[in-house]
Amino acid sequence: MRNIILNLAITLDGFIEGPNGEIDWLVRDDEFDFGDILTDILSDKDIIFYGRISYDKWGNSQPDENASQKIKDAYKLLHNKQKYVFSKTKKGDNTNAIFINSNIKESVLGIKEQPGKNIWLYGGAKLITTFLNLDLIDEYRLAVHPVILGEGKPLFQNIEDRHKLRLTDAKGYKSGVTLLSYKTDRTTNS
Amino acid sequence: MRNIILNLAITLDGFIEGPNGEIDWLVRDDEFDFGDILTDILSDKDIIFYGRISYDKWGNSQPDENASQKIKDAYKLLHNKQKYVFSKTKKGDNTNAIFINSNIKESVLGIKEQPGKNIWLYGGAKLITTFLNLDLIDEYRLAVHPVILGEGKPLFQNIEDRHKLRLTDAKGYKSGVTLLSYKTDRTTNS
Repeated sequence: MRNIILNLAITLDGFIEGPNGEIDWLVRDDEFDFGDILTDILSDKDIIFYGRISYDKWGNSQPDENASQKIKDAYKLLHNKQKYVFSKTKKGDNTNAIFINSNIKESVLGIKEQPGKNIWLYGGAKLITTFLNLDLIDEYRLAVHPVILGEGKPLFQNIEDRHKLRLTDAKGYKSGVTLLSYKTDRTTNS
Repeated sequence: MRNIILNLAITLDGFIEGPNGEIDWLVRDDEFDFGDILTDILSDKDIIFYGRISYDKWGNSQPDENASQKIKDAYKLLHNKQKYVFSKTKKGDNTNAIFINSNIKESVLGIKEQPGKNIWLYGGAKLITTFLNLDLIDEYRLAVHPVILGEGKPLFQNIEDRHKLRLTDAKGYKSGVTLLSYKTDRTTNS
């Protein structure tokens, strides 16, 4: 069965964006450029899940003209994935994206059962909350950036239940970023 | 100069306690028992800073009668440290603890300049906020436990500025706990 994986960069105090959408706190990593990171995230996935706001903002974004070939290739890879957009009202756009308006849990479980690779839960925060509260997230791969931001959009908010996790990997990089990987531990959730 | 070190266990979603003070989410670590952890935290410190509420709750607590000798020894070590309690009103108690009622920054900088070991900023959350906003924390040693708690007392709240950090260590343990160590990066704070 496909797994739903939350791949995301967060600050040490758990924000995914500043109060005005700032992502200027993302540290550069000399070991990896953004093209490598994106390609790596996409390597085991063939579906991307977006909330409507995130989709409008990032779902069809293109790299800068002056971006490296690596980044351009990564974007091509990104836009070849099947996209699903979760929206209460919007039915579709002029792309191949599939819009889901209701019955989230049933729709998602149906998609998970189809043969294929894993699913990238892209965000944003509201969709992540919905997925967490429906216990639909199977893995977390969080890049913790070395900054306390103070204010912004928290990754975890309005979570209704406790979720136990199993650490599968923890690795610190020279840039100060730590990659923490967890699987949802459904055997012991209390 | 002495460093002020925040040693603390947190959940992946950044809570230090549940809504009613619960710490039942702390996972047991077969590699270390609590006596070892406490002894390790205390090994490079000779001063402990408490907020008044934390001091009342934990400042003079004793181990269970049936606790291991290791834990009893760790508590002895703990209670031999010089304690400072930050309180707006309380002037003292029947112990050697020193109460600080005002001029926090000046008092703390004075203590830092005295020769000696490092200082454990024990908490709670309000004192940590005060220290962060006065830029008085030099190191963070956070034990991130593998759980999303959903609600409780957040470690980071009402932080006024962005604080850049330098990752000094990241290590995952079999228990699922990750130890993240940072130093405050004052050279590049923006």
